Amino acid sequence: MADLTVTLDTMLTTLLAEKKYSTIKDMLVTMNPADVALVFEDMEEDRIPLLFRLLPKDMAAETFVEMDSDLQELLIKGFSDYELHEVIEELYVDDAVDLVEEMPANVVKRILAQADPDLRKEINEILRYPEDSAGSIMTTEYISLRADMTVGEAITHIRRTALDKETVYTLYVTDRRKLIGSVSLKDILLVSSDATPIAEIMDTNVISVNTLEDSEEVAQKLKRYNFLALPVVDSDNRIVGIITFDDAMDVIEEEATEDIEIMAGMTPSGSKTYLKSSPFDLFKQRIPWLLLLMVSATFTGMIITGFENALAAQVVLTAFIPMLMDTGGNSGSQSSVTIIRAISLGELDFSDLPLVIWKEIRTSVMCGICLAFACFVKIMLVDYSFMKNTSVTPLVAAVVCLTMGLTVVLAKIVGCTLPMCAKRLGFDPAVMASPFITTIVDALSLLVFFNIANALLF
Amino acid sequence: MADLTVTLDTMLTTLLAEKKYSTIKDMLVTMNPADVALVFEDMEEDRIPLLFRLLPKDMAAETFVEMDSDLQELLIKGFSDYELHEVIEELYVDDAVDLVEEMPANVVKRILAQADPDLRKEINEILRYPEDSAGSIMTTEYISLRADMTVGEAITHIRRTALDKETVYTLYVTDRRKLIGSVSLKDILLVSSDATPIAEIMDTNVISVNTLEDSEEVAQKLKRYNFLALPVVDSDNRIVGIITFDDAMDVIEEEATEDIEIMAGMTPSGSKTYLKSSPFDLFKQRIPWLLLLMVSATFTGMIITGFENALAAQVVLTAFIPMLMDTGGNSGSQSSVTIIRAISLGELDFSDLPLVIWKEIRTSVMCGICLAFACFVKIMLVDYSFMKNTSVTPLVAAVVCLTMGLTVVLAKIVGCTLPMCAKRLGFDPAVMASPFITTIVDALSLLVFFNIANALLF
Repeated sequence: MADLTVTLDTMLTTLLAEKKYSTIKDMLVTMNPADVALVFEDMEEDRIPLLFRLLPKDMAAETFVEMDSDLQELLIKGFSDYELHEVIEELYVDDAVDLVEEMPANVVKRILAQADPDLRKEINEILRYPEDSAGSIMTTEYISLRADMTVGEAITHIRRTALDKETVYTLYVTDRRKLIGSVSLKDILLVSSDATPIAEIMDTNVISVNTLEDSEEVAQKLKRYNFLALPVVDSDNRIVGIITFDDAMDVIEEEATEDIEIMAGMTPSGSKTYLKSSPFDLFKQRIPWLLLLMVSATFTGMIITGFENALAAQVVLTAFIPMLMDTGGNSGSQSSVTIIRAISLGELDFSDLPLVIWKEIRTSVMCGICLAFACFVKIMLVDYSFMKNTSVTPLVAAVVCLTMGLTVVLAKIVGCTLPMCAKRLGFDPAVMASPFITTIVDALSLLVFFNIANALLF
Repeated sequence: MADLTVTLDTMLTTLLAEKKYSTIKDMLVTMNPADVALVFEDMEEDRIPLLFRLLPKDMAAETFVEMDSDLQELLIKGFSDYELHEVIEELYVDDAVDLVEEMPANVVKRILAQADPDLRKEINEILRYPEDSAGSIMTTEYISLRADMTVGEAITHIRRTALDKETVYTLYVTDRRKLIGSVSLKDILLVSSDATPIAEIMDTNVISVNTLEDSEEVAQKLKRYNFLALPVVDSDNRIVGIITFDDAMDVIEEEATEDIEIMAGMTPSGSKTYLKSSPFDLFKQRIPWLLLLMVSATFTGMIITGFENALAAQVVLTAFIPMLMDTGGNSGSQSSVTIIRAISLGELDFSDLPLVIWKEIRTSVMCGICLAFACFVKIMLVDYSFMKNTSVTPLVAAVVCLTMGLTVVLAKIVGCTLPMCAKRLGFDPAVMASPFITTIVDALSLLVFFNIANALLF
């Protein structure tokens, strides 16, 4: 993005210094609000309010929505009550809710005071839904039709009410607020006679979601059906809002980021981007897992201490510990990550466990045999023949390779089972990824290694 | 999903056996094509063609698109030429291209033979674009308007041509095929006079992408601007197609899955889901990295062998190797995964490297001090006082903790630098994630450990 804004920045700064406001306004109006927000973020703080006031009213609101929360707060603090009112009334309800959720309490108070009573009521209602529920991300600006309207009446209704609706392309047919059908604007336009009643062309098998449904599942549902929007209904099937594709896209991307962060042993960063996170934010995200995993490594340490005598007698075994542990850890996290992603995408649930375990066993036996064989060849070629390490006997190589094969199989079984069980128990399966699996597999591989060594070498 | 289709399956099987075709048809017609496809996938193979023939023509094509490629192939093989023709002509061009890309050569030949010459030409043109380019995922079914059309003329034009267009909600204004503007159907409907020329309401600052642009960047762009569709233009700014939000959503999700797979040391599975992958598919995906990492672990083995005498003299040191290696590996992959995701989301590029390194150094120093301190307390409490392991002296604990602190800092610097350099060199940054970082950090942590031990203990 940097290359896009860099020259604009200097140009705007110069024009501002020369007070050429109408030129600046003409420039900004040609741009997309998302880009204007980017330009603002790179400007010096004291110039932003002035620039913002140059934007036309509707564009100002759209640009405001695209800014990060620090910048929004800065602007709000500089707004007069009238300016704040103007911006807030232009926002869609879901954007107003996002704003209220991210601002500090004193700013929220001002925002709610400047919102019209209707808007305030809607914001408060949405705020009441649990975090990450369909209700919390929906917007209330949809168009509803009656089944007895004709196509002509519907078009007139749409044209009259479209202005402040988030989408006009999917219309919902209601009967005393109950959702009884949906119809796309495309279908309405395709009807040749304006006298056709909506009831005749509407789809009565409407796919909807409940206000309390998990937003990730909602996004997956919208994606699965390629819908522009999904209606949100309460327990009595009354429509209370809609969720549009752009919000679903955000959810899909955020959930993927969250999964990736958890899988790598971090607390999710939420909406805070890397560049906006302070080192202390990153520290807080990362330290809990590092501490937990360090402490849990006590077990591997104890296992090694338990076999100290064997290791003292055959120091050469120590040299293979990192390879065995790493290969085990990698095998395990391959399986766990694959399974976690499949669960996230709604492909697997707990009932598939036997099938998954059976598939992983067959895969891991192939991997195990292949790795054990390759490992044997490597040890005999590199360590024995090339590096002339005489303590690496064929028997030692056999112990290492046998451990390798067994560890891979165990690692993959553990790796696929833990995330499915976590899901079953209501935890986030992503927690069961690499760092956690690594610790368990480390312990397993050491136990296998020392027991095989004890049996064959001593 | 399972709970949704299970009862339907048995119901349909029974109704099929009783030859109640019109009941089945009535049932299927109420369903969404994506769900019908799911039901079909769970049916016995020989029943599917019969069921498919019960669907109305347009619904048949929509259901066909939602099926997985095995099922599509099965159906095509059973189709008469006429049936195949009917289905293909109902497909959007991008779906037809997907089909051609996934079918074996003999099936492709039949498909192209049954496509009308125009469609065949379009399919062949799209097939010529490189994989993962904007051109390869676009569709050619968009509606274009002329700037001198009035709103009334535009609406008539839209209603006449809407039927086989993938979206009618964003219209593109062209002048001798050059893209000069765009206008949303909402804006057209909001105009009060049908005599207003399109030129007056169109947005001339159209955001478009080039045919060769990477599909991941295209998806990010569409997401950033919350667009329903993005126009794809050639090097002369002539519009050649559009990419719609549903395709962008697929790209975003696939890219996230691909990143996750690569980060966990696997070859990406492409569009093949876990349940559709055979154990041999999984084996092929996983074994290359496992082999590579096993071989690269030779270095850690060599480092240990080099310090064999030190280890023989102080066997207690061995017990701390797993903890040091794991903590280092975890620290490194936390950084690398964070950076890889930020690169994927377009937040970071190579020019941010100094900033990133500086941020990671500060974070890692905090993590390092905290971990070293916690580790010292843990060793003195657990190993020294509780387990009465007399060989764990305070000096040994100091060696371990010093190593721990230094390793965390090194790991985080390596972890953030490698992905950025990979990106700079044109590789996929995700390759530089956990398994790769782990191997490097393992070697580093052992070198630090033994050198500190040599300096302080011997």
